[in-house]
Amino acid sequence: MTGTISLVPVTGLPEIAPGDDLAGMIAEAADLADGDVVVVTQKIVSKAEDRVVDIDPAVGHKPLVEAESVRVLRRRGNLVISETEHGFVCANAGIDLSNVPEGRAALLPVDPDRSARRIRDALRHRLGVDVAVIVSDTFGRPWRAGVTDVAIGCAGLRPVVDLRGTTDALGRELQVTEVAVVDELAAAAELVMGKASGVPVAVIRGVDPSWFGDGSVVADVVRSPEDDLFR
Amino acid sequence: MTGTISLVPVTGLPEIAPGDDLAGMIAEAADLADGDVVVVTQKIVSKAEDRVVDIDPAVGHKPLVEAESVRVLRRRGNLVISETEHGFVCANAGIDLSNVPEGRAALLPVDPDRSARRIRDALRHRLGVDVAVIVSDTFGRPWRAGVTDVAIGCAGLRPVVDLRGTTDALGRELQVTEVAVVDELAAAAELVMGKASGVPVAVIRGVDPSWFGDGSVVADVVRSPEDDLFR
Repeated sequence: MTGTISLVPVTGLPEIAPGDDLAGMIAEAADLADGDVVVVTQKIVSKAEDRVVDIDPAVGHKPLVEAESVRVLRRRGNLVISETEHGFVCANAGIDLSNVPEGRAALLPVDPDRSARRIRDALRHRLGVDVAVIVSDTFGRPWRAGVTDVAIGCAGLRPVVDLRGTTDALGRELQVTEVAVVDELAAAAELVMGKASGVPVAVIRGVDPSWFGDGSVVADVVRSPEDDLFR
Repeated sequence: MTGTISLVPVTGLPEIAPGDDLAGMIAEAADLADGDVVVVTQKIVSKAEDRVVDIDPAVGHKPLVEAESVRVLRRRGNLVISETEHGFVCANAGIDLSNVPEGRAALLPVDPDRSARRIRDALRHRLGVDVAVIVSDTFGRPWRAGVTDVAIGCAGLRPVVDLRGTTDALGRELQVTEVAVVDELAAAAELVMGKASGVPVAVIRGVDPSWFGDGSVVADVVRSPEDDLFR
């Protein structure tokens, strides 16, 4: 059984600029140990990877949304729900206008799993620690109001933990048991980040060691269209 | 800014039976303090509220799913995605066949917000503590593989925290900022419960005090059909 888990906000990170050594800054600011899960918000990953672009003032951010979308699922007023090249279904193709300078927009990382791997490898190289890394973003969802944080990339973690075949507390085989722990970890981290408090990194300590391993959000969490009842 | 948050599994609860004093059992097993969030899984709430019913062996659980649904959104093979009377959209109308005796099925509580209020009131009466209570359940979601825990009821908590009008770290007004903290709390709690470990209650300590207040999952989180692009 898992014991207590701690969610720790990482404070004191400077404003991130293109080309910044994000892992180095996290290594400075956080007190990391083997088995920690480091959750990094998409915004600072996009900034470090120079994915912040100008918005053409004549047309606004809408052409960016079209360019970042492979398919539009729904439109209503200013809102576009579309599928990105990664396969994420979200508002405005994940393009973010908050916490970036006026007239600029932050696009999603090109390959958020790779972003997570790079941070993980750099933290291991620099600190000698074996941690998992999640890149998180804030998505809405159908049927339920409000946004929650989910994972868009990960490294060193099995994103979906398959408990099929294990038995429940009454000794019977469990039915639906593929738990998307990567998204539960991203959501948990958001609780100590806060949308307005400028804390873009959190450390989760005490996670079940069996969840560590290999995996990719794009490969393991994005549902294929043929397996998806709502696309 | 929020500091560290702890997720603490509550162990040692006995098997729950109809009519059991669930709040009393939680009060015995957990070490609660003002400002804690107590997350209780639907399964034991349904058991205590005697919502476990027989499955007719001649027809299986499908007629129960139909009876508990007000509308079916999708069907594929044995899977039905439907809307419950509460307005939840989930698989098999939230009916659960695991962790109940063979031939029985656990239906959702009739009013999970009321269930949460009762537990909260009883804990205050018994222990003199002011806690928030969430009733959680495990739902799938479109577009992303795996299940995560979400809230189906709450008491003493604002389920969706509206940060509109507050400014981001660069002093600009935030855009999409209605955060469904109730679901992020439910997801976080699941990390220490585990599907197979038989831990049906978790305590979350260190939550932002401004999130406490009044609210209802059914009233505040369930999206009205006219506001919903996917119904």
